[in-house]
Amino acid sequence: MNFLNLLTVNALNIFHPSLPVLEQELFNILFQDKNIRIERIVSKGHTSPASGWYDQEDNEWVLVLDGAGTILFENGREVKMQKGDYLHIPAHAKHKVSWTDPDRQTIWLVVHYPVLN
Amino acid sequence: MNFLNLLTVNALNIFHPSLPVLEQELFNILFQDKNIRIERIVSKGHTSPASGWYDQEDNEWVLVLDGAGTILFENGREVKMQKGDYLHIPAHAKHKVSWTDPDRQTIWLVVHYPVLN
Repeated sequence: MNFLNLLTVNALNIFHPSLPVLEQELFNILFQDKNIRIERIVSKGHTSPASGWYDQEDNEWVLVLDGAGTILFENGREVKMQKGDYLHIPAHAKHKVSWTDPDRQTIWLVVHYPVLN
Repeated sequence: MNFLNLLTVNALNIFHPSLPVLEQELFNILFQDKNIRIERIVSKGHTSPASGWYDQEDNEWVLVLDGAGTILFENGREVKMQKGDYLHIPAHAKHKVSWTDPDRQTIWLVVHYPVLN
């Protein structure tokens, strides 16, 4: 019975395709549904624009899958993140990415979910 | 001015502490909010109970951070997952973990979010 084998499929992979050159940060939506959006961001030395802050309508949970980066909040709190580190960023907590490793890719997994009553 | 440095904190890390012995699968809730629950599961040769299926009220998005495992659905679909692979499991899609690598830890990131109208 090859029934099960015929139905075996490969899952999608967050680490592929790898990216030899990154002129811009790469954003990919991995999954989106009514009340969630899961993204992969690949950075290499990229930071947020020098002026202004991210001020998001949605809550965010972020995990560094590879590399390293620093998130700075408007209130002065700075979180240095490396592979495996994770952080919750509530909606409207103004923040920016103040540093990412210039020598290697930093892969972020970002989960956005809405503020709901 | 050391103002910013004083506020620098470490993020939590999904890969630590590492676990030398695993008699049972390890479940940790990394983050929980009103409409989301993010868990880490660490397996080493563990599988779901032989009989029955997971039949979950919530939607699930799962990512293998390390190791390898296989998810079997009641309809015969089998998804072999390794590091970096991700999969969406809708609410009430009956499934089980039919295999995890017995020789090393498999680390799963699991995002649960509710079915909302």
